[in-house]
Amino acid sequence: MTDSHRVPFEVVEKTLTASLLRLGLSPERAARCAFLFADTTADGVYTHGAARFPRLVKMIQNGEVRPQAEPKVVASFNAIERWDGQRGLGNLAAWAAMDRAIALSTQFGIGFVALGNTNHWMRAGTYGRQAAEAGRIGICWSNTLPNMPFWGGSDPVIGNNPLVIAVPRAAGPVVLDMAMSQFSYGTIEAYKLRGEQLPVDGGFDTEGNLTRDPAAIEASLRPLSIGYWKGSGLAMLMDMVASMTSLGLATHQLSTDFLHESGISQVFFAIHPQAFGPDPRVDKIADDIVASIHSTKPIKPGTKMRYPGEKTIAIRAENMRLGIPIDKGLWDEILAL
Amino acid sequence: MTDSHRVPFEVVEKTLTASLLRLGLSPERAARCAFLFADTTADGVYTHGAARFPRLVKMIQNGEVRPQAEPKVVASFNAIERWDGQRGLGNLAAWAAMDRAIALSTQFGIGFVALGNTNHWMRAGTYGRQAAEAGRIGICWSNTLPNMPFWGGSDPVIGNNPLVIAVPRAAGPVVLDMAMSQFSYGTIEAYKLRGEQLPVDGGFDTEGNLTRDPAAIEASLRPLSIGYWKGSGLAMLMDMVASMTSLGLATHQLSTDFLHESGISQVFFAIHPQAFGPDPRVDKIADDIVASIHSTKPIKPGTKMRYPGEKTIAIRAENMRLGIPIDKGLWDEILAL
Repeated sequence: MTDSHRVPFEVVEKTLTASLLRLGLSPERAARCAFLFADTTADGVYTHGAARFPRLVKMIQNGEVRPQAEPKVVASFNAIERWDGQRGLGNLAAWAAMDRAIALSTQFGIGFVALGNTNHWMRAGTYGRQAAEAGRIGICWSNTLPNMPFWGGSDPVIGNNPLVIAVPRAAGPVVLDMAMSQFSYGTIEAYKLRGEQLPVDGGFDTEGNLTRDPAAIEASLRPLSIGYWKGSGLAMLMDMVASMTSLGLATHQLSTDFLHESGISQVFFAIHPQAFGPDPRVDKIADDIVASIHSTKPIKPGTKMRYPGEKTIAIRAENMRLGIPIDKGLWDEILAL
Repeated sequence: MTDSHRVPFEVVEKTLTASLLRLGLSPERAARCAFLFADTTADGVYTHGAARFPRLVKMIQNGEVRPQAEPKVVASFNAIERWDGQRGLGNLAAWAAMDRAIALSTQFGIGFVALGNTNHWMRAGTYGRQAAEAGRIGICWSNTLPNMPFWGGSDPVIGNNPLVIAVPRAAGPVVLDMAMSQFSYGTIEAYKLRGEQLPVDGGFDTEGNLTRDPAAIEASLRPLSIGYWKGSGLAMLMDMVASMTSLGLATHQLSTDFLHESGISQVFFAIHPQAFGPDPRVDKIADDIVASIHSTKPIKPGTKMRYPGEKTIAIRAENMRLGIPIDKGLWDEILAL
């Protein structure tokens, strides 16, 4: 990060907590929300940590995020529940929904919560990690505002819907957190500012040709879905499952202005792999798969294969030791909120 | 299809049933298995229908598929079950597993079955369609033999694990059925035989460069995962979830010879979207999403956006009316089995 300095975790947490208290959150909810922002930043996911906080504040101020609204269960049937996020803080609602899915999995072996009428959950991987730390396999996804064309189409009609799959492991969870777009708009902009081409095709130009040129994609508003036609279909189905089970809004109903992206739909699954009784084989299977990836021969000699979420471990350790890198301008903006 | 003629659905079904009876299946299981092969072929998924039947027969003859083995439940805890496929016929075991997940979802709102020690399920989408036709959201996936490198690696260590998400709809289900590789080896070979380049990058050459050349990918054994690094991580996590919950084999433990790809792991989810009570909003949400895709503006004027599984409807109608197109050489081979 350029022009960044390091801020201790506790200072980030306290500063955001104070800001959220001023915005009307209860002390407990302000502390949890601030922790989630600090936690994401400490893990090195800078795009979805403290850098997103000013936008959240703007959306509380413009009325799209209701600071005092709490998610509530509106229907339940044994292992599944439907929740209404009441347009409150998205990360708090998502945390509560996965917490409930985990509790349901203790009782039924699997738990499923569909959460509608909620807001952006910031880092998707947080809720997979939450499940894995409770010894559960966590799967969750969210729809988003329309920001990608469907395969063959020219206008944005599907979301880049993030998907998370996380598995528990004594040696540390494996957490996949991936959006359905090949590159986020943030990444595309970063390449443009550096004057670089994307490493692989990232979208279409206005003529409909695949391109690595970030400026051309910003101009066309046609980022590429992963796997071309495949990710486009996957994003559509994720939207269908989330909105059909939560009775919430689908991507095509959401504002295309991210400051008004409110009322989104999400689903949370928790599976209890030891529900049949404690079994050491579960952990061994996970470790052996990780080992098989680590032992594969790299294309470039000397490089190391890393499982999803592996890089986080070293980054977090460094950030907890030295402080979290935060751009000075951003930090000044946060202090002034 | 070249050199194909059309065979009535019932003739395909009867011919395969007779062959399976000779191989030792019970009448009921032979009929179900033959139906699934005919059904897949009628739907136009020619790669995984009758064309796969001779390989199944070879694997019964070489002992990898046990014709009389039936899947059995080995552990259960409320909404989840663990099954052992006993290395029987993969499509019959998968059908039974999804059938059980559907029944569990009636009772608990969601059902989950992990099936280990099973065999190739042929067309993945079959089991999503099965759930959707029962009014359930069906999600399932399978691991496979190692046939793709992990991102950055040079040797095959992950599988192209097919993923299915299907949703029910009064107007007909939407069924996504996608493998984690950008192109199957079958597709890569078809391009090579036609002397054509792939339409987008499909793998790496032996130097580690991305390429559209099908022959180069066949030589390197390095097909590309969807979304480059993303699909590679997703395939790894799918393998972890399937093998950890079924206590079955992981991709790295499976033979790299497809005639000995036996003992794979799969998971089946069924979610009951009307478990809270009949609600017409569920279907309307699905229809509105389909309509939003259909109404998007195409890049090429005059083309039509199609949702996953949509093409199947017209193909199936034609094949049921005129007979199923089957290559003459293949049909002669099947008649001789």
